[in-house]
Amino acid sequence: MNNYFSSDFKLGILGGGQLGKMLLYETRKFDIQTLVLDPSAEAPSRIACDSFSQGDLMDYETVLQFGRQADVITFEIESVNVEALIKLEQEGKKVYPSSNTLKKIQDKGIQKSFYKENAIPTAPFKKFDSKKALLSSVENEETVLPFVWKSTTGGYDGKGVAVIKNKEALEDLPETPCIAEELIPFKNELAVIVSRNPSGEVNTYPVVEMEFHPEANQVEYVICPARIETSVAEKAREIAKKVSEAFEHVGLLAVEMFQTEDDQILVNEVAPRPHNSGHYSIEGSFTNQFEQHLRAILDLPLGNTDSKVGGVMVNLVGEEGYTGDVIYENISEILKFKGVTPHIYGKKITRPFRKMGHVTIVNEDLNEARAIAEKVKATIKVIGNELI
Amino acid sequence: MNNYFSSDFKLGILGGGQLGKMLLYETRKFDIQTLVLDPSAEAPSRIACDSFSQGDLMDYETVLQFGRQADVITFEIESVNVEALIKLEQEGKKVYPSSNTLKKIQDKGIQKSFYKENAIPTAPFKKFDSKKALLSSVENEETVLPFVWKSTTGGYDGKGVAVIKNKEALEDLPETPCIAEELIPFKNELAVIVSRNPSGEVNTYPVVEMEFHPEANQVEYVICPARIETSVAEKAREIAKKVSEAFEHVGLLAVEMFQTEDDQILVNEVAPRPHNSGHYSIEGSFTNQFEQHLRAILDLPLGNTDSKVGGVMVNLVGEEGYTGDVIYENISEILKFKGVTPHIYGKKITRPFRKMGHVTIVNEDLNEARAIAEKVKATIKVIGNELI
Repeated sequence: MNNYFSSDFKLGILGGGQLGKMLLYETRKFDIQTLVLDPSAEAPSRIACDSFSQGDLMDYETVLQFGRQADVITFEIESVNVEALIKLEQEGKKVYPSSNTLKKIQDKGIQKSFYKENAIPTAPFKKFDSKKALLSSVENEETVLPFVWKSTTGGYDGKGVAVIKNKEALEDLPETPCIAEELIPFKNELAVIVSRNPSGEVNTYPVVEMEFHPEANQVEYVICPARIETSVAEKAREIAKKVSEAFEHVGLLAVEMFQTEDDQILVNEVAPRPHNSGHYSIEGSFTNQFEQHLRAILDLPLGNTDSKVGGVMVNLVGEEGYTGDVIYENISEILKFKGVTPHIYGKKITRPFRKMGHVTIVNEDLNEARAIAEKVKATIKVIGNELI
Repeated sequence: MNNYFSSDFKLGILGGGQLGKMLLYETRKFDIQTLVLDPSAEAPSRIACDSFSQGDLMDYETVLQFGRQADVITFEIESVNVEALIKLEQEGKKVYPSSNTLKKIQDKGIQKSFYKENAIPTAPFKKFDSKKALLSSVENEETVLPFVWKSTTGGYDGKGVAVIKNKEALEDLPETPCIAEELIPFKNELAVIVSRNPSGEVNTYPVVEMEFHPEANQVEYVICPARIETSVAEKAREIAKKVSEAFEHVGLLAVEMFQTEDDQILVNEVAPRPHNSGHYSIEGSFTNQFEQHLRAILDLPLGNTDSKVGGVMVNLVGEEGYTGDVIYENISEILKFKGVTPHIYGKKITRPFRKMGHVTIVNEDLNEARAIAEKVKATIKVIGNELI
């Protein structure tokens, strides 16, 4: 059955943040009915869906009752109740990505072990059930400083990750199961988005290059295509495809990777959904990542992942020192620059480093796009009406 | 003031059809609050706006009360109550395009006279207050067959226009004021979209070429850029700009033109809004026409109107012989073709030649896009569950 268009078919989307909001542009374009569940009454996806429900994504009954109203269920955030998804699958609902895939990804410890079992290159690591176990491992010199600490669950937008350089930094870590990963020197952080449908059709987007903000550990620029050698790009796309197949993933899978000093590709982590590193595709690609996710989970033919033009994406995050009602200062200035499109997510309150939107810059010449991106970054300020 | 983004500012949109629906993708992208008024509870724009009202667009009180809730008012259809817009302007509301511009465009008789007064090239014509007046003019041989008949008001999607070749065809014409236009042999039907903001910034999109369906008098393919000589394209863009300036138009103005056998450009008619001939821009242009309309009416800097790639648009109209619940037969087949994006407007009931959606085909090679467009046209069928 693929009578999704202007029909009674209903897609259920768990999560109503900016990713859900951008997915809804595509469901509207195809006139596909949608139900959205999100804990916030002010979620960016509260409008443009056919039916919005407010509720806890981690609550079994809430997710189960919500899912029962839909024909296919997907999610735009990993923190959802997996047991409810398993139950929905048992009741015959299609859940994409599947509960089985999500379970392997939700917990970073399980995710890392999965790479090891499937011979997917990743940085060496150790798992710890508690902060105490980590501390004693450091004490015994089984785990050596410096290393990368990651909470096994709940990490998002730079939270739940820290580079631990000294023993004092250890003290500030929260009480939670975690992993300690070897700190690998790398040249570049790269990402590849893989799309795969239930029929097994699979393709990859070009490799993108991510530049991180030094303090917030958030992506500041995403550049497509990455300015790397073709052979390295091909290797990255091959590894990303292998990861998607190992997970038997359906939908979009964003695979974040390191390019090491000696041009090895190590998988850092994955996100089983449209991803910040693919936002450039709305303006840059023949098929944007949100349409591609929809095509994939509905078992439609996948679209062309090539770029029409070069693209650079700049995240708009809340300026330090401000909170309260958001103001996009100088936004009309950046609209004068060539090939600039702002995306405003619709969050009313700004906070330091909160993701409030992004700006895409497209250009036939990638270097020109990159230069304009810097001007954008220097011009627009996401401030609030309260100083903190 | 240009604090439109995530603010209390409200844009009122008269009309909730497919043009309004596509405009709402852009207001969502910029997080601009919108109010929509449409007579149908099932209008394509019923969702994705912040507030939807059902009401008659031609009713003075309805439009006035609706407009009073908004800060800026625009429309996606010409058939709206102009007196209410005048009143709203008197009360200090910004209405773009203005009531004054709309008045000159709504009535095709006034529109044609306006071209004459402003030295804008257009086909010779005569105006008639009634069918009777037209008939006697033909009888007296002041008006000679064949000619193009146009109802002065209410024409849309091929309705209200007819080529009159013989006296029998005259009998079938409705009782209405009309114009009779000289039938000019032409090589091409062209269109240029002009954007202009209140500050007077103005730019034009590339010239597009329109191929019409022989029976329904509806556009079947729109091709961007038009395959015409550069000098003709430049002339067309200059004339379109002149038309926009003469109308003191704010927003988008679609100018439809004929390229005559001897490469003259004659203005056929205009639409003061985003237009079918600009749909290719969603996938093809650096700034799509809906974003551009928004930039223009909000007095923001206008975007780049260049194309990223070549584009061809195919209208999806209801197949002859069918009505009832719409089915998009073979839609998943066309998704396999390169660079294909279907747009489904969300009308539940199909009718012969009803505009139900469109498909854009983008490609670096315009000829390849044109070839794929023909395959799309031959593959997808918009049918219904009832035969007529």
